[in-house]
Amino acid sequence: MNQLPDKRENQPKETGRKLPRRTLLGGAITTAAIALIKTATGQLVPAAVPYTDPTTVPGVPPGTVGSRSPFEALVKKPSEGSSRTPLQDLYGIITPSDLHFERHHGGVPAIDPERYELLIHGMVDRPLKFSLRDLKRFPSVSRIAFLECSGNFRTGKETMTPQEICGLTSQSEWTGVMLSTLFREAGVQPKASWFLAEGGDAAVMTRSIPVAKGWKDAMIVYAQNGEALRPEQGYPARLFLPGWEGNTNVKWIRRIEVADQPFMTREETSKYTEPVLGGKIRQFSFDMDARSIITFPAYPVQVEKGWIEISGLAWSGRGRITQVDISTDAGKTWQLAALQDPVLDKAHTRFRYLWNWNGQETEILSRAVDETGYTQPTLAQLVAARGRDMGGYHLNPVTAWIIGRDGAVVFKPEKWK
Amino acid sequence: MNQLPDKRENQPKETGRKLPRRTLLGGAITTAAIALIKTATGQLVPAAVPYTDPTTVPGVPPGTVGSRSPFEALVKKPSEGSSRTPLQDLYGIITPSDLHFERHHGGVPAIDPERYELLIHGMVDRPLKFSLRDLKRFPSVSRIAFLECSGNFRTGKETMTPQEICGLTSQSEWTGVMLSTLFREAGVQPKASWFLAEGGDAAVMTRSIPVAKGWKDAMIVYAQNGEALRPEQGYPARLFLPGWEGNTNVKWIRRIEVADQPFMTREETSKYTEPVLGGKIRQFSFDMDARSIITFPAYPVQVEKGWIEISGLAWSGRGRITQVDISTDAGKTWQLAALQDPVLDKAHTRFRYLWNWNGQETEILSRAVDETGYTQPTLAQLVAARGRDMGGYHLNPVTAWIIGRDGAVVFKPEKWK
Repeated sequence: MNQLPDKRENQPKETGRKLPRRTLLGGAITTAAIALIKTATGQLVPAAVPYTDPTTVPGVPPGTVGSRSPFEALVKKPSEGSSRTPLQDLYGIITPSDLHFERHHGGVPAIDPERYELLIHGMVDRPLKFSLRDLKRFPSVSRIAFLECSGNFRTGKETMTPQEICGLTSQSEWTGVMLSTLFREAGVQPKASWFLAEGGDAAVMTRSIPVAKGWKDAMIVYAQNGEALRPEQGYPARLFLPGWEGNTNVKWIRRIEVADQPFMTREETSKYTEPVLGGKIRQFSFDMDARSIITFPAYPVQVEKGWIEISGLAWSGRGRITQVDISTDAGKTWQLAALQDPVLDKAHTRFRYLWNWNGQETEILSRAVDETGYTQPTLAQLVAARGRDMGGYHLNPVTAWIIGRDGAVVFKPEKWK
Repeated sequence: MNQLPDKRENQPKETGRKLPRRTLLGGAITTAAIALIKTATGQLVPAAVPYTDPTTVPGVPPGTVGSRSPFEALVKKPSEGSSRTPLQDLYGIITPSDLHFERHHGGVPAIDPERYELLIHGMVDRPLKFSLRDLKRFPSVSRIAFLECSGNFRTGKETMTPQEICGLTSQSEWTGVMLSTLFREAGVQPKASWFLAEGGDAAVMTRSIPVAKGWKDAMIVYAQNGEALRPEQGYPARLFLPGWEGNTNVKWIRRIEVADQPFMTREETSKYTEPVLGGKIRQFSFDMDARSIITFPAYPVQVEKGWIEISGLAWSGRGRITQVDISTDAGKTWQLAALQDPVLDKAHTRFRYLWNWNGQETEILSRAVDETGYTQPTLAQLVAARGRDMGGYHLNPVTAWIIGRDGAVVFKPEKWK
């Protein structure tokens, strides 16, 4: 947390502004009974029982597993084939496992871990099958890293939340075996350059991956945020390619075929490719470029004049985030946000910036910079680089939120076609 | 992960040993249908439906929240007043929020966040009440840190798991406001030296905390692992004192009274004090000393001769873990374990050590060292320092696992009275 003390030191002194709306003792005490309670997402739901002072009744004894408070309604809002992480409701950098985004091509399969097998064959000296137990016996590693779908951008209307705009990114602590370890076991041959990763779901998802990524930092992961991988994220095991587009991180992985050329599967020819300038198509665009989004304040919250902590997430598939710039004047000037430690390689990084809003209409924006020097582009810059027909993948534009005089925060959708 | 490549490089080459029990192609293929399936904890449960090749049937579409695989039975094993984290079933350093240990004195209260208030009064210039919304408007911080009950040691029989021996420790990413921020708002007076922290549960838990800890690194946390704090961990807000015994991290905190002396509450006079040598009682023993435990292999697993990755957790309430030593010969010699990055201040740290077991009976042990130079003691050293009547708090002895010739792993319970 070494980047934060300064910010706290800069906290304003008592000057009559509204940080926070606190009640001096002797002021009004809330006593009215309520029949409706408000959930975290603003829904009003009937209180199940008359509210009782919790110090006067015995509480619930410890259980076999804990539970989420009924006052917190955290949902992924599923749509066809995907469901999105509610970024605007979350804190810090870890995504709760049950709120990790989902994007499936054939639904979530039910796989018996005792029957699970991973086959490695092709250009290897020793084709091998590994049971889940086998995989867990190898030396293991853990890393905290994000995973993002390359189709993670939606726009079109003002009433969109961060979840709706770019909720196809989540972060977990992943644990598994380095793929390089399995490559050594199988004896991947020197001339091998690509491998096919195949999933055991109804889509039998396949992608071609450079062998170099397998040697570098690819993992076969079987655990997520401390526990076994969730079914929606590939139980019992998935490929994890730090920083690479979600689709290549093949879930429920059952087969790796090593070869000396890519396999040209459906998901890397008709899908997951992007038009670029000059009438060409970009293929094998694996890396997720640096991006950020302000998650507070964001639609649908309404803010008050005075001090506001602007907060959000920044990440890059190419390395560490080194800088996040914040503009509170529609992009005219930029200030540095504080980055919350630990700032990890290829990981969601929480940024914060304390801002004194004067009550005038404005736009707030964030802009990420990563350790390669890459700066998150505006939508106009993306269009200039890739053309108006740039498709729906790898769109990482700077996102602007409009704050009205009434404090209402809405998304600023931009058109590019 | 910079401490791990060496270990992977050291991975043994093909020499006929059992890492892992893999199947060369052409070997037997498992085809038998099973009516029973084995869960992660070894239970056999009836398969709900005949098993179907998951590539042949559509999977489950994305949902509002994800779920744990039915093949993974993770439970906290509640007993009176507490439930314990299944350390032997977990990976990495994050504890899933629903598996965070619980220790309550009056059960888990149901608190309406809209009615929640935190009062700060006593030796302050401005007594204040904060709503949850108020607390969230302040500058926030996140940190990954462990939380451990000071009564976290059980012994007595060989058939004990890490969960049963020391499952009253868990780790989360905590988010909230620094207590120092609230202290400045309220104007804590220069002569103030202690504060009372009071919970809003049926026990109305109270502890006295030095004001210095409040200025240093104490937090009022309202989020855990990305989402709102769970009810079992103090929803909607708790005190969090990095590195200090769990009981002082008052859950459901509703009142802070600032004073110039400790309040001598029940939980720091009749409880949470320890006899020491010379017939005296030690009080206000806040810091949790360095500790470690091997979580694999551990009871109830059975291992096979050959390469075994010994893995476990080490932590210290006084700072970072700098070293974990492993003995595989009952304490005669010690080797360095690899520490998984990130190694954080006052945080569970995952250690790993690759060991080639020769099949002979032996004992394996781990020993943590923290950045203050403190080394985790043996039980004999604890007894020598504190006497045979040292009570049940702050016991952090080196834990030994006995591995029999059949590979069965059991706890080595030691008596000290």
